Amino acid sequence: MEQNQKPIGIFDSGVGGLTVASEIMRQLPCESIVYFGDTARVPYGSKSRETVTRFAFEGLNFLLAHDVKMVVVACNTVSATCLGQLQQSSPVPVIGVIEPGAKAAVGVTQNKIVGVIGTERTVKSGAYVKAIKKINPEIKILSKACPLFVPLVEEGWLDNEAAFYTAQTYLLPLKNEGIDTLVLACTHYPLLAATLQAVMGEKVRLVDSAFETAVEVGRILERIGLKRSVENRPVYRYFVSDNPAKFIEVGERFLQRPIDPIDVIDPEVPYKFKI
Amino acid sequence: MEQNQKPIGIFDSGVGGLTVASEIMRQLPCESIVYFGDTARVPYGSKSRETVTRFAFEGLNFLLAHDVKMVVVACNTVSATCLGQLQQSSPVPVIGVIEPGAKAAVGVTQNKIVGVIGTERTVKSGAYVKAIKKINPEIKILSKACPLFVPLVEEGWLDNEAAFYTAQTYLLPLKNEGIDTLVLACTHYPLLAATLQAVMGEKVRLVDSAFETAVEVGRILERIGLKRSVENRPVYRYFVSDNPAKFIEVGERFLQRPIDPIDVIDPEVPYKFKI
Repeated sequence: MEQNQKPIGIFDSGVGGLTVASEIMRQLPCESIVYFGDTARVPYGSKSRETVTRFAFEGLNFLLAHDVKMVVVACNTVSATCLGQLQQSSPVPVIGVIEPGAKAAVGVTQNKIVGVIGTERTVKSGAYVKAIKKINPEIKILSKACPLFVPLVEEGWLDNEAAFYTAQTYLLPLKNEGIDTLVLACTHYPLLAATLQAVMGEKVRLVDSAFETAVEVGRILERIGLKRSVENRPVYRYFVSDNPAKFIEVGERFLQRPIDPIDVIDPEVPYKFKI
Repeated sequence: MEQNQKPIGIFDSGVGGLTVASEIMRQLPCESIVYFGDTARVPYGSKSRETVTRFAFEGLNFLLAHDVKMVVVACNTVSATCLGQLQQSSPVPVIGVIEPGAKAAVGVTQNKIVGVIGTERTVKSGAYVKAIKKINPEIKILSKACPLFVPLVEEGWLDNEAAFYTAQTYLLPLKNEGIDTLVLACTHYPLLAATLQAVMGEKVRLVDSAFETAVEVGRILERIGLKRSVENRPVYRYFVSDNPAKFIEVGERFLQRPIDPIDVIDPEVPYKFKI
């Protein structure tokens, strides 16, 4: 297969990465995708660095065995834990979700006060703070863990009263501190965007890591000459390690298209490279 | 040590079982307690029957090594998965949380329409439906999984607007079906009792599995002659398998007393029996 015909691999601990897949499908409609969600071992956030790294390498190897031309780590925990190690070992480019979001936030903020919301693990890792400060150390960053947002999204409660008051409880302190930019540092959060915007008001700009990551994917493919040409129809394939029914139920809400075909695999069993 | 002086062992996948511990402390203030929360491997709900059973046996063995006179499985998943196996292998009585809650619900309902709320796993297991129907097959049971309640409780949002609207969204359908009894089939839920009652109205009786389990513990100790006498001051000890800081933070809200002393142990390492 010609290099540029190969699919993009996307890896996440579960369904969350489908917001990144969805943006890639929208922005790069000719690209094929192989998605792997490690649903048997989700969530990664509470696991040790060693374990997360092992799982991440298993995910990377699985995607490489599917002969992908690039790997997107659509998982904040993995991106914050071992992205460098994955990049060093991989024969194809590996990109995470943190840098694209951080870069966009720096470009968007006017008053240099940025809010970052994510899971407890992502916020505690300080990865976004580090990435933003690296670009512009003068930006003031207010982080807030919002552990109820993921279960809200998985429940499909995107704009009911429970979602609104949950968002208000988390975000009013950030609003009162005068942030003008809010980074959605969790792949689940874009589904709550309308509710978050309603709470924050029109003047605060939301930065969607999923959107920014897809932009970065397009940029890199262009640069290395592996962008697929327009005459191609993309092929989408999905793999999970457990419970495909639940993945389809929640995932189709993320993707707004059918999740098919889907296969269940064991990421601990090594795959033969097809190259 | 005399038999009745020995502590009661309580086992849960995490902090939830502390609501059961709290009720035992209140109802049986002379009893000592050894609590083990398997925080490294929580949640059990998404794991296979084999894995949950293995973890449960490790928890049981750990408590037996502490020379307990009885074991309370304060975990709905374990109670629904392998309680019988634990009971068969244990030299001391083992009681779960499901039967006490089911028994109380049957005693309380007047109109024979009972609601049961719990995690997705507990509801799907059908364990409460089975236990209630076994006592009275004529009772109509409406079950509802409420996956947002556990993260709400762990966040400490017990009676804010987010908690209220979440409870209302889950419970209005049960209220409209005319239930007169609502079983809190998850050890986290008693902390939301005031909010749940506000949504359901005064006429609906809440059945708290934690409370009922403590009643059952007292009954059994009385029956087998192992109740501790009044002159004793109880000793409380806590063990977790990971992250004691988080356990203390959330757990002290459950217990409303200091969690001390606490130790971190590895449940996969077998303990020598002290007997």
